[in-house]
Amino acid sequence: MRPKVILFGDSITEMAFKNEGWSSCLANHFCRKVDVVLRGYSGYNTRWALKMVDKVFDGIKLGEAVAVVVFFGANDASLADRSSSFQHVPIPEYKTNLKAIISYIKEKISSTAVIVLITPPPIDEDGRIKNPYGENTTGLPERTNSDAGAYAEACKSVAMENNLPVLDIWSKMQEFPHWEKTFLSDGLHLTGEGNKIVFEELVSKLMEQGISIETLPIDLPHFSDIDPLDPLKSFI
Amino acid sequence: MRPKVILFGDSITEMAFKNEGWSSCLANHFCRKVDVVLRGYSGYNTRWALKMVDKVFDGIKLGEAVAVVVFFGANDASLADRSSSFQHVPIPEYKTNLKAIISYIKEKISSTAVIVLITPPPIDEDGRIKNPYGENTTGLPERTNSDAGAYAEACKSVAMENNLPVLDIWSKMQEFPHWEKTFLSDGLHLTGEGNKIVFEELVSKLMEQGISIETLPIDLPHFSDIDPLDPLKSFI
Repeated sequence: MRPKVILFGDSITEMAFKNEGWSSCLANHFCRKVDVVLRGYSGYNTRWALKMVDKVFDGIKLGEAVAVVVFFGANDASLADRSSSFQHVPIPEYKTNLKAIISYIKEKISSTAVIVLITPPPIDEDGRIKNPYGENTTGLPERTNSDAGAYAEACKSVAMENNLPVLDIWSKMQEFPHWEKTFLSDGLHLTGEGNKIVFEELVSKLMEQGISIETLPIDLPHFSDIDPLDPLKSFI
Repeated sequence: MRPKVILFGDSITEMAFKNEGWSSCLANHFCRKVDVVLRGYSGYNTRWALKMVDKVFDGIKLGEAVAVVVFFGANDASLADRSSSFQHVPIPEYKTNLKAIISYIKEKISSTAVIVLITPPPIDEDGRIKNPYGENTTGLPERTNSDAGAYAEACKSVAMENNLPVLDIWSKMQEFPHWEKTFLSDGLHLTGEGNKIVFEELVSKLMEQGISIETLPIDLPHFSDIDPLDPLKSFI
């Protein structure tokens, strides 16, 4: 049976099968080795995600997953006193929720699957002001980069406590000049380049954990291994 | 549990999670409603695919699929006396193999899933001569468009006999001027535009069978249905 890589997150995950999306890239990269299962929920924070976790993983049998990627925090980090306040989750609860999601995955999905946390991405505040959700007449972004950074730190500390790999995309993106417009289309969601860096960094993180195209078996004989003089001997 | 749409075919299917690929487009289109499961095998004809069909569908439980797409014939149609002759399958056997695959799906995967056949695409012979597989010093393409058309007809007749929907992509593509380079990157595989037309025609074919984003339920509350004043009431 082909193993699964499950991607669990918010809109950045929900949109990941769009053109150039990081889920498409991952599915293509692990072609014939892994099924990528997308569980992305636009607008969701960890509070709502945790409430629904049983339904999210419904139908996924124990042990099917080799890896589960948990990518939340961008909505939790909406500021409590700005236009998206109803999505806000305070940092202590964000950490508790992440830990509860991790425990759920370990108990119900797989005790051996690699669980990778991804921090929220950085915020381009200019992009957020120019692309508000609904009405935002305050002229203030509903998210700030420094707050997203605090959630990224919190995510990293949960990973460290649980001895899990973490992809700090908040820091990684900001290593590059012009990261604001290069990686983010509206100050929050990913451009093609943004998807590419998430994909590449995740592949690298999975490889560190022993999950790579080199280590995973291919499902059926590869075309190049089929003998043109006697093809059927590959299919006995 | 989220239903599955399974895509079973050759390299045109295996490559369908690449950028702009028809599987990515389908997964994104049916976002939060369906899991697209890719089972593409580069180089495979129906003879080899049938031999492996148990392994192909291993781990997919009875009744999980709402649709199975079967997209073979491009390799079967390799000419018996040209450079890819070892992939050739005569038309009568191609039809028998397709029928056996259909029977397998009905018995083992789902008696109610919609099974959609897709014919092989047309062949741009100029593209095949310019992009040979390995050595082809004959100056002759290993596939011709008229032979691919005969396999497309055979596929359509199997669909008709079994009362199944069929997407005749061989004919559909040739309705457009410059189809040879617009839809085919090397005379056989799909360009971005080629992927787009397969995606669009397949969505339309599924819709005719009652499978559409309008008819399929969303898995969890949509963000726009969550009350900002009392979000948690959506998650009871």
